[in-house]
Amino acid sequence: MHIAIVGCGQLSRMLALAGIPLGFSFSFIAEEGEDSRCVEGLGTISHWQPGLAIGDLYQTLGKPDIITVEKEQVDIALVTALQEYCPVYPNPDAFRTCQHRYREKQMLDSLGIPCSPYTYRQSAQRSINALSLPLSLPLSLPVVAKSCSEGYDGKNQWVLKNAQDVAEYDQWANEEDHIIEQWIPFDKEVSQISVRGLNKEIHHYPLTENQHQQGILKQSIAPAIDIPTELVKTAQDTISKIMESLDYVGIMAMECFVVEHNLLVNELAPRVHNSGHWTQSGSHTCQFENHLRAISGTPLGSTGSGGVSGMINLIGTNKPSLDVLSPHSTLHWYNKSVRDGRKLGHINFTDNNYESLHRQMSAFTQTALTP
Amino acid sequence: MHIAIVGCGQLSRMLALAGIPLGFSFSFIAEEGEDSRCVEGLGTISHWQPGLAIGDLYQTLGKPDIITVEKEQVDIALVTALQEYCPVYPNPDAFRTCQHRYREKQMLDSLGIPCSPYTYRQSAQRSINALSLPLSLPLSLPVVAKSCSEGYDGKNQWVLKNAQDVAEYDQWANEEDHIIEQWIPFDKEVSQISVRGLNKEIHHYPLTENQHQQGILKQSIAPAIDIPTELVKTAQDTISKIMESLDYVGIMAMECFVVEHNLLVNELAPRVHNSGHWTQSGSHTCQFENHLRAISGTPLGSTGSGGVSGMINLIGTNKPSLDVLSPHSTLHWYNKSVRDGRKLGHINFTDNNYESLHRQMSAFTQTALTP
Repeated sequence: MHIAIVGCGQLSRMLALAGIPLGFSFSFIAEEGEDSRCVEGLGTISHWQPGLAIGDLYQTLGKPDIITVEKEQVDIALVTALQEYCPVYPNPDAFRTCQHRYREKQMLDSLGIPCSPYTYRQSAQRSINALSLPLSLPLSLPVVAKSCSEGYDGKNQWVLKNAQDVAEYDQWANEEDHIIEQWIPFDKEVSQISVRGLNKEIHHYPLTENQHQQGILKQSIAPAIDIPTELVKTAQDTISKIMESLDYVGIMAMECFVVEHNLLVNELAPRVHNSGHWTQSGSHTCQFENHLRAISGTPLGSTGSGGVSGMINLIGTNKPSLDVLSPHSTLHWYNKSVRDGRKLGHINFTDNNYESLHRQMSAFTQTALTP
Repeated sequence: MHIAIVGCGQLSRMLALAGIPLGFSFSFIAEEGEDSRCVEGLGTISHWQPGLAIGDLYQTLGKPDIITVEKEQVDIALVTALQEYCPVYPNPDAFRTCQHRYREKQMLDSLGIPCSPYTYRQSAQRSINALSLPLSLPLSLPVVAKSCSEGYDGKNQWVLKNAQDVAEYDQWANEEDHIIEQWIPFDKEVSQISVRGLNKEIHHYPLTENQHQQGILKQSIAPAIDIPTELVKTAQDTISKIMESLDYVGIMAMECFVVEHNLLVNELAPRVHNSGHWTQSGSHTCQFENHLRAISGTPLGSTGSGGVSGMINLIGTNKPSLDVLSPHSTLHWYNKSVRDGRKLGHINFTDNNYESLHRQMSAFTQTALTP
């Protein structure tokens, strides 16, 4: 079976590395100017730009049996056109919904799923103060303005704390559609990674606890600590409802805020996700293998995990010496060129208990990540 | 760090797949006529035959930092010559010892390690009956005649049950050196897979229980069932003694017979080994990653495992449908062309207890391996 992936980043790399043992072969679609170092050697790379013939692209990809995608900001016209040639999983509608914050919020609203109170600010409406959209709750400062699209790793998000921030924002923010969200003083950020198969079966990984720094995921721990069983159940029921409503196939990540024992959905990622990287060491079947099992119609692998797991992202740093690895940690390096703020690799940790996991992760951060 | 591997089979493939995430790059040495489909795409392949300049080979390999080997029947002259350019692990002396059954037996004898009683039959000595070598125990029928070299997967071994077998053997077996071993009515076959680092640290995987069919490994279960703790300790002490005496670096496999609570060493494999494939699903760090960690001077990964694991070899069979996978099993397919009796892939299983592991493995054998 031959699988083509739209995108040439680390997620495509790890998908391919997880799929080669299963006997899959891969090819990759690079958009104009896209760096493809991550996937070099793992399959042929086809370059694409809007306007080129889709039939030719399908041929140069080696006539894949299935196409999948590593990024939510995929060109919907491209994946929709590719559906004429072979199945695309997850389906383009899921991307269309998840790649636009307002559409995503509307979908969550329609399913009755709690998320942060928000309002939609179209570019034509220049001022937040001029908004008169229906809101069950009035927003109060601080709020977060977010581009409806192209937002990931904290990009294109602005926290507006006071009247002056709002006035300044109103001056410059007239070019694109935004949503304005209530800023949430959350207790924890968690993510639910789940997988839905072609046969509609759903498996859930343990809830993951995440720490961000300047909007970029810094580290994860799984299972998330001190989360009541009912909240875990709510997370699983919520993502199941979303995946079913989208007739979703593959891995999905649902990022949430925990606020006083309630779960507010923050955003969805229709793909394998950074907060699921710990599954490579900590789960029976990693998210990459399970995504491929899902889209290829293979019975899903167990999402069970023993012990506790952690992940630390390597951001804008040179490849660490392998000397820093411990018996319970391993490196995933993406073969990218080093650039400030860029995700270049991650370290996975496993342990028997949280205390010693924390010790391991702190030791790593202090020795290996100190400039 | 760039690593070259002598050999292009499935062990090289799985070494490369385990090493790419760590940021290693690979190249491979193919001997004349060697099939390299297993490693295609995973690095450059250099062809070699005796007589070619080693310096040129080293260049075309991309000037590796380390060289390792996937097969014991490696050309000792080749790896010795390559040592002039970069370290070779395990060292060529270890291969020299392990690739010749008489030298291996002599080494075990010198360390006082129990193995099957044997005698050495040089090609010049035509008749077993004519032998007069010092033996602490006389051999009695049945015995097993084995080529001193080129023996793996039960190849070049002959069980001689009666006087007629011996007479016939004496007629034809005059071309090469053999050892004649006492045939052992063993209770179990087990293997100890262990890894020794550049810093001389040794980690042991749990003892593995193996079942062979016509000399080829059919399936493994780990940890081996009903083995007294002292025997596990003996296995670990024995392989440690061997690795220390050879100043060994990397993964070694020691295959043993269990006979009435005693351990007899049957043979050594100076490399990652088929009976350690279960570690890919069942251990914190698989044997492939740990071999690479050892030879690159990286701290060794934990050899701990949770639950119980199993492995079934796919021999001479078409690629099974992925439908046969269960949540607790996964496939490793080697991308080789299908040929009778050839190892083409394996399935790894994990479970919480032996009973349900056996159920899983039997179900797989009955449904997927039935012609």
